[in-house]
Amino acid sequence: MKPLPVDALPESAAAVLAAAGVGAGSRVCCALSGGADSVVLFELLRRLQPRFGFGLLAAHVDHGLSPNAPAWARACVERCAAAGVPLQIFRVEVDRAHADGLEAAARAARHAALAQADCDWLAFGHHQDDQAETLLFRLLRGTGVRGAAAMRAVEPGGAGRPGRLRPLLGLRRAQILGWAGAHGLAWEEDESNAELRFTRNALRHRLLPVAEDLFPAAVPTLARAAAHFAEADVLLGELAAIDAAACGAPALRGAHLVALRRAGFLALSAARQVNLLRWLLRASAAPSPGSVPLGEALRQLRACDPAHPLRLPLGAWACCAYRDRVWVEPAQPALPQGLRWRGEAVMRWGGDEVRLVASIGEGLARDRLERAAEVRLAPRGEGLRLRLHPARPRRELRKLCQEAAIPAWLRDRLPVLWVDGEPAWVGGIGVAAEFACAPRAPGLVPEWRPGGMPASTSPG
Amino acid sequence: MKPLPVDALPESAAAVLAAAGVGAGSRVCCALSGGADSVVLFELLRRLQPRFGFGLLAAHVDHGLSPNAPAWARACVERCAAAGVPLQIFRVEVDRAHADGLEAAARAARHAALAQADCDWLAFGHHQDDQAETLLFRLLRGTGVRGAAAMRAVEPGGAGRPGRLRPLLGLRRAQILGWAGAHGLAWEEDESNAELRFTRNALRHRLLPVAEDLFPAAVPTLARAAAHFAEADVLLGELAAIDAAACGAPALRGAHLVALRRAGFLALSAARQVNLLRWLLRASAAPSPGSVPLGEALRQLRACDPAHPLRLPLGAWACCAYRDRVWVEPAQPALPQGLRWRGEAVMRWGGDEVRLVASIGEGLARDRLERAAEVRLAPRGEGLRLRLHPARPRRELRKLCQEAAIPAWLRDRLPVLWVDGEPAWVGGIGVAAEFACAPRAPGLVPEWRPGGMPASTSPG
Repeated sequence: MKPLPVDALPESAAAVLAAAGVGAGSRVCCALSGGADSVVLFELLRRLQPRFGFGLLAAHVDHGLSPNAPAWARACVERCAAAGVPLQIFRVEVDRAHADGLEAAARAARHAALAQADCDWLAFGHHQDDQAETLLFRLLRGTGVRGAAAMRAVEPGGAGRPGRLRPLLGLRRAQILGWAGAHGLAWEEDESNAELRFTRNALRHRLLPVAEDLFPAAVPTLARAAAHFAEADVLLGELAAIDAAACGAPALRGAHLVALRRAGFLALSAARQVNLLRWLLRASAAPSPGSVPLGEALRQLRACDPAHPLRLPLGAWACCAYRDRVWVEPAQPALPQGLRWRGEAVMRWGGDEVRLVASIGEGLARDRLERAAEVRLAPRGEGLRLRLHPARPRRELRKLCQEAAIPAWLRDRLPVLWVDGEPAWVGGIGVAAEFACAPRAPGLVPEWRPGGMPASTSPG
Repeated sequence: MKPLPVDALPESAAAVLAAAGVGAGSRVCCALSGGADSVVLFELLRRLQPRFGFGLLAAHVDHGLSPNAPAWARACVERCAAAGVPLQIFRVEVDRAHADGLEAAARAARHAALAQADCDWLAFGHHQDDQAETLLFRLLRGTGVRGAAAMRAVEPGGAGRPGRLRPLLGLRRAQILGWAGAHGLAWEEDESNAELRFTRNALRHRLLPVAEDLFPAAVPTLARAAAHFAEADVLLGELAAIDAAACGAPALRGAHLVALRRAGFLALSAARQVNLLRWLLRASAAPSPGSVPLGEALRQLRACDPAHPLRLPLGAWACCAYRDRVWVEPAQPALPQGLRWRGEAVMRWGGDEVRLVASIGEGLARDRLERAAEVRLAPRGEGLRLRLHPARPRRELRKLCQEAAIPAWLRDRLPVLWVDGEPAWVGGIGVAAEFACAPRAPGLVPEWRPGGMPASTSPG
């Protein structure tokens, strides 16, 4: 390892802040455990604050796992008080029976707590040794390109979530400790770091030293490999976007499901189908499915008759196909059996949302809803008939669904707005003529959106 | 590890042969070291031979490194003689001063020797443990997605090179040893396997056991990760092909350089530019350049003035740009200063080729060349002037090159065919009117092709 001049540390961290576009008006929250890495990060951020002009705060998570936890929290309180930096302390309950072990449970609880910090960016003290360790850990537990990308120095936030910064990611642990020593910093020793009871610690203390003995540049080399994988992951996303556009189909009427044209999808190579489905699921914030159910879903999709609706489970989500369309959607959460409307703009519908957007001359007649005794959102029930055009007769929902290519399994999940017992709107179908808004009158346009899924296909 | 029924071994190998399309008429050469893996592979191929109908042969490489080498060769001779399988023995000289160490030198010598075996497919005894080891080895020495794909079960050959099969790649070492034991096979123990003097052996005996202790499924998990990387690598190639098509420009006239439109290339993201350049280099069988020179070349390419020819070294190749074009080509090997033509169809021109393709009514007049006292391929020399149209005057090569957008540095490398001291053809420019073939007369069309680079952009 090349020794880094002491001045290079703040500059290495500054480069990450600059790449993230941190500036005046940004609120940066330092995740402060009290250990060496986070203490150095805190001090570097303090030094960089005047140059960038961001607001600095800190957050400490007390996991309640160690007898020394109060001492750690106290040290953080003192450090922040001396620096005049506001500190928020989160006390969390760690699920000791977590399926993935105590360490994973602690991480999950910590991240959930920190996500509540009132900031634009959460800054973490992860360094290059952590990065190498993360890559090895993920490879040995099973991962593809996305997981092998390990941690990123800048992860933009979105949808109310703060982004993440790792200003020390390009630095070795020894460099950070060297800087801490040179600046006379005090820090706490995490007693769990010295123990081998956690897998990651075992990897750090048993596997990485052997790797570094055989390959002296193992840590920076692995970190560089992670960067290559991160770049490849971005490119695979761009390929998926190209393929999605080539298979593009309009959103299902009324709902906002992004559907692909089946013929275009099936014309892709198997590897590109997998890549595209993974990307669609990611765009919907769905958990990543295993390769085995994904392969099986694609096998069935290739073999099936388009006239039969197909619904293939992929963990908590499902891959669906019907007629000329292919799409993904959440595995069905329970639907409310009847939800009273009291004027809200948004109602939950299973995992989805139904919105009522104010309009003029469009959608439902607002006054009809407001003067009704009861407006409820509920499933269709038996024998529902709807008149879509004032001059035509009522028609069976079954027929309307066939015309709109809404698969049979989805019909029980269509949201229906009932106004004093009469169907006024059916999701995916439309507004009943009797409840339609007159021209230039105040209206409400109902929209049915899968929860967490944006209307466009860009990954969120 | 799940125990595999003994019958499953031949089936696992058969699946690889089937995937490769091995059948009657295929010649499969088993790379036979005499160790357990290759002996099991040999016996499995013998059993599968009647079902698939391929011709089986074997090749043994004697590296001359071990005092036991003659005993190994003898064992292979006896095994093949008993089975009635033809065996070829290659004795190689291993470069003990090789920059990458003795092991890499032995591998290079072995592969060069085996490439001479007269067959369609070379079959190797690599198994899942080798695969996991290869992935770790490459990650610790530095790799991107392509290297992390490690070994493939089927690698198609091409251009006279045999393809490669690894029928045991899905099997654990212990399964192979178990099968060898169950079938009473004898094999030689490679004494180097038990020593730690080679890095790969150290990885096998020191690093992998620790990894398997911490993660019992480490080997199959790493092998699965390699398969994900292989799939990602294919997809990144497809993305490059999409981008190349979008930046497509016609080949340089006369030469067969594949050139990209500069504006299209520069409109791509930096990651896609890197991906596309790597793919173009691979399509030309160029060695993979490091990320640092590649990044520097792209930085200069973005900054430079299109009016100035740019030539940026990428190891043994170079990235070039001039006016509206961007391309890659070999770093310049020395040109012959004058090469006498004696009727050959192909002449070497530095790293390139000049072909003279027989025609009727096109190109050079064949009789003019055949009755000349001397026909030579040589560089342009000073003050060359060429008449392209019979009715027009001779013009300076400098002017003709400007019109054809041939950059200044390339002009000294243009092949010129001199017929009794007169220029008859200039590569990239055309045929002199005085030497043009008459309609319906026998002609020779000169073609200037970069060596090793196909005319299309598909990777070779």
